[in-house]
Amino acid sequence: MNGSGGMLRADGRRKDQLRPIKITRNFIKHAEGSVLIEMGDTKVICTASVEEKVPPFLKGKGTGWVTAEYSMLPRSTHDRSPREAVKGKQGGRTLEIQRLVGRALRAVTGMDQMGERSIWIDCDVIQADGGTRTASITGAFIALADAFTTLKTRGLIKKRPLTDYLAAVSVGKVGGEILVDLAYVEDSAAEVDMNLVMTSKGQFVEIQGTAERTPFAKQDMDGFLAQGWSAIQTLTNLQRDLVGALD
Amino acid sequence: MNGSGGMLRADGRRKDQLRPIKITRNFIKHAEGSVLIEMGDTKVICTASVEEKVPPFLKGKGTGWVTAEYSMLPRSTHDRSPREAVKGKQGGRTLEIQRLVGRALRAVTGMDQMGERSIWIDCDVIQADGGTRTASITGAFIALADAFTTLKTRGLIKKRPLTDYLAAVSVGKVGGEILVDLAYVEDSAAEVDMNLVMTSKGQFVEIQGTAERTPFAKQDMDGFLAQGWSAIQTLTNLQRDLVGALD
Amino acid sequence: MNGSGGMLRADGRRKDQLRPIKITRNFIKHAEGSVLIEMGDTKVICTASVEEKVPPFLKGKGTGWVTAEYSMLPRSTHDRSPREAVKGKQGGRTLEIQRLVGRALRAVTGMDQMGERSIWIDCDVIQADGGTRTASITGAFIALADAFTTLKTRGLIKKRPLTDYLAAVSVGKVGGEILVDLAYVEDSAAEVDMNLVMTSKGQFVEIQGTAERTPFAKQDMDGFLAQGWSAIQTLTNLQRDLVGALD
Amino acid sequence: MNGSGGMLRADGRRKDQLRPIKITRNFIKHAEGSVLIEMGDTKVICTASVEEKVPPFLKGKGTGWVTAEYSMLPRSTHDRSPREAVKGKQGGRTLEIQRLVGRALRAVTGMDQMGERSIWIDCDVIQADGGTRTASITGAFIALADAFTTLKTRGLIKKRPLTDYLAAVSVGKVGGEILVDLAYVEDSAAEVDMNLVMTSKGQFVEIQGTAERTPFAKQDMDGFLAQGWSAIQTLTNLQRDLVGALD
Amino acid sequence: MNGSGGMLRADGRRKDQLRPIKITRNFIKHAEGSVLIEMGDTKVICTASVEEKVPPFLKGKGTGWVTAEYSMLPRSTHDRSPREAVKGKQGGRTLEIQRLVGRALRAVTGMDQMGERSIWIDCDVIQADGGTRTASITGAFIALADAFTTLKTRGLIKKRPLTDYLAAVSVGKVGGEILVDLAYVEDSAAEVDMNLVMTSKGQFVEIQGTAERTPFAKQDMDGFLAQGWSAIQTLTNLQRDLVGALD
Amino acid sequence: MNGSGGMLRADGRRKDQLRPIKITRNFIKHAEGSVLIEMGDTKVICTASVEEKVPPFLKGKGTGWVTAEYSMLPRSTHDRSPREAVKGKQGGRTLEIQRLVGRALRAVTGMDQMGERSIWIDCDVIQADGGTRTASITGAFIALADAFTTLKTRGLIKKRPLTDYLAAVSVGKVGGEILVDLAYVEDSAAEVDMNLVMTSKGQFVEIQGTAERTPFAKQDMDGFLAQGWSAIQTLTNLQRDLVGALD
Repeated sequence: MNGSGGMLRADGRRKDQLRPIKITRNFIKHAEGSVLIEMGDTKVICTASVEEKVPPFLKGKGTGWVTAEYSMLPRSTHDRSPREAVKGKQGGRTLEIQRLVGRALRAVTGMDQMGERSIWIDCDVIQADGGTRTASITGAFIALADAFTTLKTRGLIKKRPLTDYLAAVSVGKVGGEILVDLAYVEDSAAEVDMNLVMTSKGQFVEIQGTAERTPFAKQDMDGFLAQGWSAIQTLTNLQRDLVGALD
Repeated sequence: MNGSGGMLRADGRRKDQLRPIKITRNFIKHAEGSVLIEMGDTKVICTASVEEKVPPFLKGKGTGWVTAEYSMLPRSTHDRSPREAVKGKQGGRTLEIQRLVGRALRAVTGMDQMGERSIWIDCDVIQADGGTRTASITGAFIALADAFTTLKTRGLIKKRPLTDYLAAVSVGKVGGEILVDLAYVEDSAAEVDMNLVMTSKGQFVEIQGTAERTPFAKQDMDGFLAQGWSAIQTLTNLQRDLVGALD
Repeated sequence: MNGSGGMLRADGRRKDQLRPIKITRNFIKHAEGSVLIEMGDTKVICTASVEEKVPPFLKGKGTGWVTAEYSMLPRSTHDRSPREAVKGKQGGRTLEIQRLVGRALRAVTGMDQMGERSIWIDCDVIQADGGTRTASITGAFIALADAFTTLKTRGLIKKRPLTDYLAAVSVGKVGGEILVDLAYVEDSAAEVDMNLVMTSKGQFVEIQGTAERTPFAKQDMDGFLAQGWSAIQTLTNLQRDLVGALD
Repeated sequence: MNGSGGMLRADGRRKDQLRPIKITRNFIKHAEGSVLIEMGDTKVICTASVEEKVPPFLKGKGTGWVTAEYSMLPRSTHDRSPREAVKGKQGGRTLEIQRLVGRALRAVTGMDQMGERSIWIDCDVIQADGGTRTASITGAFIALADAFTTLKTRGLIKKRPLTDYLAAVSVGKVGGEILVDLAYVEDSAAEVDMNLVMTSKGQFVEIQGTAERTPFAKQDMDGFLAQGWSAIQTLTNLQRDLVGALD
Repeated sequence: MNGSGGMLRADGRRKDQLRPIKITRNFIKHAEGSVLIEMGDTKVICTASVEEKVPPFLKGKGTGWVTAEYSMLPRSTHDRSPREAVKGKQGGRTLEIQRLVGRALRAVTGMDQMGERSIWIDCDVIQADGGTRTASITGAFIALADAFTTLKTRGLIKKRPLTDYLAAVSVGKVGGEILVDLAYVEDSAAEVDMNLVMTSKGQFVEIQGTAERTPFAKQDMDGFLAQGWSAIQTLTNLQRDLVGALD
Repeated sequence: MNGSGGMLRADGRRKDQLRPIKITRNFIKHAEGSVLIEMGDTKVICTASVEEKVPPFLKGKGTGWVTAEYSMLPRSTHDRSPREAVKGKQGGRTLEIQRLVGRALRAVTGMDQMGERSIWIDCDVIQADGGTRTASITGAFIALADAFTTLKTRGLIKKRPLTDYLAAVSVGKVGGEILVDLAYVEDSAAEVDMNLVMTSKGQFVEIQGTAERTPFAKQDMDGFLAQGWSAIQTLTNLQRDLVGALD
């Protein structure tokens, strides 16, 4: 009798339910776009900073650039993690995440319509409870849209060069069940961990799935894609409400 | 008629007036002590993390250790600053500030009464508008006191080993006038910039004064010390209200 | 009339056809397992080195560890790439690939049955023509199996603790067509680039798909998975022929 | 009966007495200005090197720049200290000192009167017995003045653009007594350690005071300032004798 | 009766005998010149890459540049060596060898006749059994000559600007006997280890000799030079056969 | 009529003549052995520091270790050189020289007779005019001998475990003439540059010769060895006078 929507998770959520989402815009006054995104206890500050130049490989080509950096405050995690600036380099996980965030945002940005300028996305996790990379993408999209609004208001661009809304969610298999938006305690027990980055039209921008313990079957894959897409829709609907229609 | 308390600053403050202060405790759920301190538009997350070991030079001596790290989010500043983890090292200013924060807190901590454990203080600036190092110290003291409260609650220490309240404030000379708690626009125009770290009993823990443009006279020094002490009292009174009497 | 198996690729391959594969075992005399894998013009030396200790976090737990490192010779690529040892750090792409290789191999290794020892996998690309990460995984599995055979011959383990054969392949969408095992010229023109890591039983170990230019639809995803699985079977059959049955 | 000038220090000095000072000019033949300064057993080589360009942020502004670097030979200290070039970075103390030296010299230099050129100050401690940063400043001023003399002799500047003589001294509280120019054995036992950088006219350029063990009172502060100023006068008088009147 | 050519070495060689030499040209398809050189079990990939620019210090001088980099695959050695890219820097031995290789090649190159372009030599050891630096030089000369042939074929230079053939060999004293081309087992037991870099005309380009255990006498020196020169002739004759006459 | 001893060098020296040598012992008070060696205008501080432990690879073997580090003050050279601690790593030339110095000293040290302790040799060039590496070796030998004398005086060793005196000199070919002990102006014009490290008994410890422009002939080699040995004798005789007979 306990259907796929039944109560079973530690925080009382249904298997297919996202955590409570809270978006605070204009969180950092200096940035052209800035958002505090909270997915349950996961909290990330996403800022979008405009720089009036492009990397050397794009100079003179009339196109722009979007790039991202990611970091966690040392005590955003349960135990304190050493600071990467002290260790003298960014770790593999950090590089992997920030490359993902930048790549995903570029996939929905018309970089040839933003002028020869760069937008730097900074995702700084201040409290972590699983899903920091997906929250970063969902929040960064809003910060990016707001930065484009700022540029439009300043008369520097005619329209926001965004082709679609973009959100991300984690799905996973825990104790044989498919769950969406895993909290840390679920994530660390997951047999499979998958991150989906999709648009509001249901198209894929990025898929990353890992068998943490044992390889998984095709039917699990199908379940992940279905559940993930359902959750993505909730997120992109929220983005549409917040940043308005894309021209 | 315009006395030393007259209106003259950009944000409407009197020369001897602190910016509005807001302290949010338990800001990060994982940390033993955590505070968001806001001094006007300057916002710093201060966390205190307990680690059950001490640095090698203290091993087996029955004493504890308090140390600090400091960082600014890239877009905490007016223009985006490069991330130190990307540059591969902490800059001189960062090292100077975090050494100052750690040294100041140790001066009011009875390290022989906290057991062989370390407390890591992390001061992460999320929005900067001048006075980030002094806000860090004032906020970190509260996070430290709260971490000691946590240890006491867990039965690991008998009492909080703090000898006095500790706060910091900037004073400076701008346009020939002595001002307290300089905002960024004032700080960048200052002829002299001084940071005072003092206890609630009026004792000095640290003084750092720099003639940014032209050397300054003894009577300026006297003015800085008097104005600074007055402001420190407001801050340590607030600390007493929040963390309670020290045993 | 030109079906999915028709001639259309620059090197005369069918869309679903792998490049010629050549495996040279015992390529480096010092290593416990070593393979030169050639997939067309992509050539990677994979070695497996046994070290009689485990990382600190596993000490005393009676379990082993498998980890990987990846590098490209400076002139393995069309233009010479700067050497990472000279730049002073491994780049994000390198870290991402070597994390993937290690994770994938661990998913088919019974680490609790290999004793407290580590196996270091080194994948060094000596000539690159697309698909270096997938060739690394396919070749590294053989080097790993050979290293386990060496350990078994020395009487250090009873059986090779491998749960299944493991191979990887790239699939992508180029000019609207789904292709497998992309050569560099195809890869750089791809709209979508996906890497699949699967076992001989058809289970997924890792999936990484990226929309390089435009988001892709669910039906493309289905095509990638089908074509990829078909190619994986060819590779794992080859592995079975070479390393023999897993006990 | 033991007044403030009474005998009490390990090396027989009065409390307010500087150690013997020896200045050897033109110590390194290549440098435009170079000095070996000896304060007792503390010996520092200070060189001033002219470079005919300025940092990027000053390019084209018609102004010059003065900057400093500091280092200690590994065996300048009682026990050998690891070499920073081997560790791969300058430590926090080193960065703090060299920032101080550069800032202090700039405060007495008319940088808009020296042309678009930089002067690099190098302070290399060859033997350390306390007070290396203050000796560095006092010696570096002379090297800087000599480098300006060289530039004037070469017809590159009209006059030495120095606004005043500049010296530094340490003061501290040891066993309840205020001492000037602390030797290492005194410094390591000090309750308070303060460094003063002042001009010959009695103006402050920098003050840095630290309660090493216990916070200190306002009356201590007053004592430090008085004793320090007295010692500074001896040093700036010596500088005037050596480098001559400033125009 | 056991003359200087008698059988005495572990691999059956005479004291004055080189190991079997195998040269595979065009080993890496992308490079302008590339060679796999095998001296017994020592195997090195040498590539020569043309870059159409010169280092800053040569810009506009109408002259070219030849430089070299050296590396060993982690498992080229008996035990796995840590990867320099992971350690974050090239070690002293690596730097020493690559400086030697570049210097030696420049000594036989007419850099004023190659145009304003650089040739990067990469020597990557894939299997090591002693003499990797000398094999690198001997092989790199061939790769360099082939790169010049490529440039000539492309009409970018009139003739290959090489003044003589260039080879290198190790000589050493092991158990009181002088041996040439030491294998690893000999090298690690050697009392003296010397590397000679010479031209086909018998001139010296580089000599590096080290008493590993005990200083050696003049008569040993004479023996090293004689035996080394004899071996060099074999190598430069081989080079002449392969790359043809130098104009 | 101008024989090999005729006047021809810029500083009035004969071709076979060393520059004036000055040795100041006990130059740094903290070190167990310390020497300022001056060879003309080349000045190097050599210290020998005793550390009561050995590197990990020697632990428990009852033998000691001698190692060396080398550095140049930024303005020891004609133009200021960037500080290696600022660049974040030691350069190739530095590593090469310090490896040479350590290796040479170990060749005359009975490391099994010095107890499980290390001696760190630091060679810091304060003024450079050619021949800094050879002056470093000649001076470091004296510092090492003095450190052993200190250990003997403290009763920690019975005798100084040195097998012979050790000195180094440069020889070169400039304008077709063989010169010894090249000053910077000669060194930078040399066709061949060779460094010899020899003992007082005429045995070789190290030879490093480089054809800077054109390869050189066997007869030049013979000349270098003869002239170098003659100069070495002067240096080792001086060492014998200073440190006394070796037991």
